[in-house]
Amino acid sequence: MAKKEKRKATTAETDSPKHIADRIKKSAEKMVKQINNLEDPEFTTMQRGKSNVIWDEKKGFLELGNKEVTRTFLNIAHARKFMQTTMIMEKTRNYLEHNKTASIREIYYELKHTVADTKENTFEEQSESDTIIVDLEHSVDTIREKLNLHANPKGTLYGDITLLDRMHNNDKFNASKLGRGGWSIMSRVEPEEIEIVDSSAEYLLVCETEAIYERLIEEGYPKKNNCILIGIGGQAARGARRLIHRIHNELELPTIVFTDGDPYGWYIYSVVKQGSMALAAHSEFMSVPDAKYVGMTMDDIEDYQLEMVTERMSEGDIKRAKEMLAYPWFQNKEWQAQLKKSVEKKVRVEQQALANKRLDFVATHYLPEKIRNKNFLP
Amino acid sequence: MAKKEKRKATTAETDSPKHIADRIKKSAEKMVKQINNLEDPEFTTMQRGKSNVIWDEKKGFLELGNKEVTRTFLNIAHARKFMQTTMIMEKTRNYLEHNKTASIREIYYELKHTVADTKENTFEEQSESDTIIVDLEHSVDTIREKLNLHANPKGTLYGDITLLDRMHNNDKFNASKLGRGGWSIMSRVEPEEIEIVDSSAEYLLVCETEAIYERLIEEGYPKKNNCILIGIGGQAARGARRLIHRIHNELELPTIVFTDGDPYGWYIYSVVKQGSMALAAHSEFMSVPDAKYVGMTMDDIEDYQLEMVTERMSEGDIKRAKEMLAYPWFQNKEWQAQLKKSVEKKVRVEQQALANKRLDFVATHYLPEKIRNKNFLP
Repeated sequence: MAKKEKRKATTAETDSPKHIADRIKKSAEKMVKQINNLEDPEFTTMQRGKSNVIWDEKKGFLELGNKEVTRTFLNIAHARKFMQTTMIMEKTRNYLEHNKTASIREIYYELKHTVADTKENTFEEQSESDTIIVDLEHSVDTIREKLNLHANPKGTLYGDITLLDRMHNNDKFNASKLGRGGWSIMSRVEPEEIEIVDSSAEYLLVCETEAIYERLIEEGYPKKNNCILIGIGGQAARGARRLIHRIHNELELPTIVFTDGDPYGWYIYSVVKQGSMALAAHSEFMSVPDAKYVGMTMDDIEDYQLEMVTERMSEGDIKRAKEMLAYPWFQNKEWQAQLKKSVEKKVRVEQQALANKRLDFVATHYLPEKIRNKNFLP
Repeated sequence: MAKKEKRKATTAETDSPKHIADRIKKSAEKMVKQINNLEDPEFTTMQRGKSNVIWDEKKGFLELGNKEVTRTFLNIAHARKFMQTTMIMEKTRNYLEHNKTASIREIYYELKHTVADTKENTFEEQSESDTIIVDLEHSVDTIREKLNLHANPKGTLYGDITLLDRMHNNDKFNASKLGRGGWSIMSRVEPEEIEIVDSSAEYLLVCETEAIYERLIEEGYPKKNNCILIGIGGQAARGARRLIHRIHNELELPTIVFTDGDPYGWYIYSVVKQGSMALAAHSEFMSVPDAKYVGMTMDDIEDYQLEMVTERMSEGDIKRAKEMLAYPWFQNKEWQAQLKKSVEKKVRVEQQALANKRLDFVATHYLPEKIRNKNFLP
């Protein structure tokens, strides 16, 4: 099959580093103007938390609503946060202008100091700066990656996909030619830096566990089935989610998710597909509403005679399943059936349980059959 | 600098897959012979736990002593374990002959079934098969990687080092040309499969956190300082330890370790250097007695004015520091001083705290100065 050319980077014109730096500057200039007019300077961001999260069924992902919060400097309850906000604004704009990136822990350490002539520290704990970062993301309508901030990296990429790193000698490499280890996904994979060049793959398979990722590579699955593999190692890190989103959109590849058969695994799927409550504002950058779920399901236990290798669900798992039954984005008969069955039977089944048939069963039978027959959950 | 040719793979002749498969076979044949002679079949392995762990000061690593344990089939207390042992022996020999590998979770699932005509399962929990795997490692004097078993992968590799994967089209790739992400270290990196081809690096720098690994790459540190970088992401996984051991020995590169300045980080260093109590039998395959420690130290706090960005040690950290004070391999004045100081001051200091000076301080000042001046702990 011919290499598929990338469609387009998902960075809209308004999301370039320059545009975002300008939005920060504009917000700061507004404050300066207010101060010069002897007015109380203001900073506006979005209200967070469940009360402002909306399930947009049409778009197929979680979104933040329109409720705003305004913070003013002369309010004693706001003054400290206001100072912190301007510090983070200055620093991230600085990163953007100098092409530097930092982890959210580094920016905390970088900005922590005692305010001159006081005993007051700018920040006491990273949780303080983390909150301000989210405020700023919402205020200038972007994601932290575009403020040149990132959390820790996690996740691996394997298969016929060529990437180019513009910030590193324009290195061009194909993730099917790095032995069986694959490429270690960076914490930030924004289009300005990491270009998706091309791929001949027909779909993207996202695996919850690195163990199954290794198994499928050992069995030659990605080559035989012409797919790209991403191992996320539990809940997907932001870098991995961005890369999944970009591969799906820029290469127009179907995205299929494969997790353990338990509420935790199903939730991991839903975060890849519809986003999470905590990051509802960023769904458009990270979610993949068209993603499909291949397994593990409660029905697999009977269909593949896996009764012997199920495990008892923990109390926490059962509680989570009950909560998920109520989530609007699990309101379809397929997922209601899965969740109810799991609560009833109180068992879970892992991806690796398929080894009970034969080590290569997952690669030679389970996945090829289910994917060929489009035996997916929505 | 000219590329350094690898010295030799550390796989001794007696450690080839064929030799190990033969040792398993020999052990099984002995059992068959005993059965045919109407004798009680026996399986011998090494005693584990603290009482059989020896600190070999001359070798510079922890070792297992000589105490053996013999298990017999006709002892009711041993019968179940005996059955499990023979199952694991058969399966791993099979892997070795067919060039298959499996995770320790997969072999558990693969072997779990109900014994014919009974209600007894071969294994109830993975902890049962894990124990037997360790028994077998000790019995045939090898490591699980050479039984074609592995745990989960973790860790990343970056820098001018060329590897070749014999099991994957002889892919040859240089870890400085994969963009800034680097190579995802596999769970097994045995010389039969992953060949270290060459490198021009002058030393290997092992970093506890992936965040510092990313920082050093962003600053171009490995190129400017001609070193290889491995990010281990907390306690080093077995695959990462094997690769560190092999790079150190085959390329004869000095190994320098960089962790957070707290008992947990220092323990991570000691495991890379001298091995761990739990894996004392495998130190010769995994430890690097010549490794040096560059930081973070308690003295760094004063030397680099980091008082503002220290953190309070948890009770657990303090307890661990006190335990470590008694470990034979921490009996030198340098480490005693560090540990005592940490217990006294009750503070810890992270690698990323250096960002308080400047984001690039770790790359432009801290590491180059300390390494140039050989300001190491032993």
